Amino acid sequence: MNQQIGKGSLCFSEAPFIIGSASVVGTKEGEGPLAKEFDCIGADDKFGQDTWEAAESSLQKEALTLALGKSGMQPEDMRYLFAGDLLGQLIASSFGLKTFEIPLFGLYGACSTCGEALSLSAMAVAAGYADYAAAVTSSHFASAEKQFRFPLEYANQRPVSATWTVTGGAAFILARAGKEPLAKIAGITTGKIVDFGIKDSMNMGAVMAPAACEVIAQHLADFDRQPEYYDRIVTGDLGSIGQEILFDLLDKKGYDIRSVHEDCGMLIYDSETQGTGSGGSGCGCAASTLSAHFLPKLATGELKRILFVPTGALLSTVSFNEGETIPGIAHGVVLETCK
Amino acid sequence: MNQQIGKGSLCFSEAPFIIGSASVVGTKEGEGPLAKEFDCIGADDKFGQDTWEAAESSLQKEALTLALGKSGMQPEDMRYLFAGDLLGQLIASSFGLKTFEIPLFGLYGACSTCGEALSLSAMAVAAGYADYAAAVTSSHFASAEKQFRFPLEYANQRPVSATWTVTGGAAFILARAGKEPLAKIAGITTGKIVDFGIKDSMNMGAVMAPAACEVIAQHLADFDRQPEYYDRIVTGDLGSIGQEILFDLLDKKGYDIRSVHEDCGMLIYDSETQGTGSGGSGCGCAASTLSAHFLPKLATGELKRILFVPTGALLSTVSFNEGETIPGIAHGVVLETCK
Repeated sequence: MNQQIGKGSLCFSEAPFIIGSASVVGTKEGEGPLAKEFDCIGADDKFGQDTWEAAESSLQKEALTLALGKSGMQPEDMRYLFAGDLLGQLIASSFGLKTFEIPLFGLYGACSTCGEALSLSAMAVAAGYADYAAAVTSSHFASAEKQFRFPLEYANQRPVSATWTVTGGAAFILARAGKEPLAKIAGITTGKIVDFGIKDSMNMGAVMAPAACEVIAQHLADFDRQPEYYDRIVTGDLGSIGQEILFDLLDKKGYDIRSVHEDCGMLIYDSETQGTGSGGSGCGCAASTLSAHFLPKLATGELKRILFVPTGALLSTVSFNEGETIPGIAHGVVLETCK
Repeated sequence: MNQQIGKGSLCFSEAPFIIGSASVVGTKEGEGPLAKEFDCIGADDKFGQDTWEAAESSLQKEALTLALGKSGMQPEDMRYLFAGDLLGQLIASSFGLKTFEIPLFGLYGACSTCGEALSLSAMAVAAGYADYAAAVTSSHFASAEKQFRFPLEYANQRPVSATWTVTGGAAFILARAGKEPLAKIAGITTGKIVDFGIKDSMNMGAVMAPAACEVIAQHLADFDRQPEYYDRIVTGDLGSIGQEILFDLLDKKGYDIRSVHEDCGMLIYDSETQGTGSGGSGCGCAASTLSAHFLPKLATGELKRILFVPTGALLSTVSFNEGETIPGIAHGVVLETCK
C-alpha cells in the first residue's frame, strides 16, 4: 500500500499516536497568555545552571522527563530520539539528552525542527521501526541572542519586525498504540528550502512566510483539501508581520486561510504589553505551544483536526556576514483528535 | 512483520538499494592514496567560490548533481533529501542544495552525519515512503578550521593526535529497486551519545572511539554476529590513535575487530607524507571514501558485506569554551553486495 500522497506528503495507513507531551518554559512565557497551560515555568531563566546553553539543555531534559512521566514510560522504552535546537552543533540537545542513553537522530530545521522531529518520529513509528519514540526541541532567548545577534548586556534596540526567541522546550512521546492518546499524526508534508532573497535578520517572519506558504499550498494540493478542512492551520513563529505576508502569498495561490489561521508566535506573548515585537520565535515556540495549548484541545475533541506548520529561518551569522540571504523552511504535520 | 532487532537495530525486510553515488574532493585528497577513485577533484579548494562556506556548498551541489547523473535520475525524482554538514545551522547543505527544490530533512550528527543520512533515507525508502531519496554530506578543511579552531592564516601547530578535516562531499541515491545497484542497505544500528569526559579538541579519535565501540558492540549483539561476519568494519574518521582506543575498548567487550577493521580517515591520506596527523576527519571523510573506495568493491562483489560506522565528535566552540566535555556519536549501516 502506497502512503505517498501527491508530490510532498505522506498519509499514514497506521497513524501513530502522541500519547504524552510536556512543555517547560521561562519566566517571560510564564507571564504571557498561555501561562496556565504550560507544565512547568522556571523560577529563573538559568534553570539552576551556570550558562545559557546549559539552561537550554535543562529545558530539553526536563521536558522529556515530564513527558515520559505523563505517558507512564521509561527512557529505555523509547527506541529513538529525534531532537534538535538552534545552537551550533545542537549542543542544547547533545548535553540535555545524553543521560537518557536513547539512540539519537540529531536534526536541524531552525525553528521548524519540531515539525521535522514529529515527521520523522511519526514515519519511524508508523513503519513499525519503533513502538515508542520521542521528539524533543528547545530554544532559549539568551543562548539564541548570544549566538545570532548581540550579547544581552549590549541592550540593543529591536525593530518592530523582530521576534522574541521563546525560552521553552517540549517533548512528545509517539506510540503505535495508546490507551488515551492526545492525538494521532495522520500525515505529513515535508518542506523544501525556500529563498525569497531576504537578508534582514530582524524580520524572520518575512523569511519564513514564503516557506510556510509553499508547504501549506503543497499540502492542500497533495491531499486535495481546502483550508476549512482544518479547524486550525497553525504556523510556528511567523509573528504578526509574517502572518500578513503568508495571507498575501496564499491568496495568490488561491487559498484564503484567514478564518482558520493561528500563529504560535502570536499566541505565546502579548506583544502589546510584553514588548516582544512581531511575536515569539524559536524551536521552543511552536513546540511548547503545541504541547500546552493545542494538544489538550485535540485530546478533548474541542479541536478535530489541525495542520501544524512549524517554520524555520535558516539564519547563520557566518553566511549572514558574508552577505548571503536567509533561506526558510517549514514542515507540515496533520494532527487529528482520537475522540 | 517486525523489523526491530535487539535494542538498537533494524533489519529491513525489503532492503533499499544504493543505485548511484558520487564524491567530490579537494586538492589534498586528490594527492592522497584514493586519488584515482574519486569522481571529481577540484582544481583549487575554493571551487570557484568567494568563501570557504560557499566552496563547501559547491561540494554538495556537485556531488548530488553527479550522483543523480550517474543514476539516470532527475532532482524531481527524489522524494526526500537527507543532508547535513559540520557548519553551524548547516549552511553548506542549505545553500548547496536549495536549488534542487527537494523536500529536505536537515541532519546533524557531526562526522557521523553520513551514517545518519543513510539510515534515515534507508528507513524512508524501505517503508515505502519514497521510491527514491538522496543522502548528502560534506566537510571542508578551511570552513571547519575557521569555525572550530584557528584561522588558517594563524598557521598554528597541531599535535600528532589531531586529524585533518577532509575537503569532500558525497551523495548517495537510494531506491526501492534498481537495475544495477551498487549495494543494498540490509540494516542499521543507531547510536546514542557517548561521553567519556574528553575535553581535548585536538584528539577527536579519543572522543569518537567510545561511541564507535558502543554502536559496533550493540550491532554485533543485536544481530548475534561476530566481527568476521563482515569483510570489513569501516569506521569514519577515528584516525590511527582512535583506532587503537577502539581496539582496546572492544577487547573489553569480547570483540576483536583487528582483522576486519579499516578507518576512512586512515585511508584517505598518507599521514607520513601529507602531514595529516592521526588521519582524515569530517563528514566528507567517511562519505567520500564510502562512495569512491568501498561502494565500487561492493558493486563488483569483491566485498560481500561491510559494516559502515561513521563517527562524530559533537564539538562546539561554545560548549568547549565553557569547559564542557566533547561527546561522541556513531551510526552503523550494513551494506551488502547485490552480486
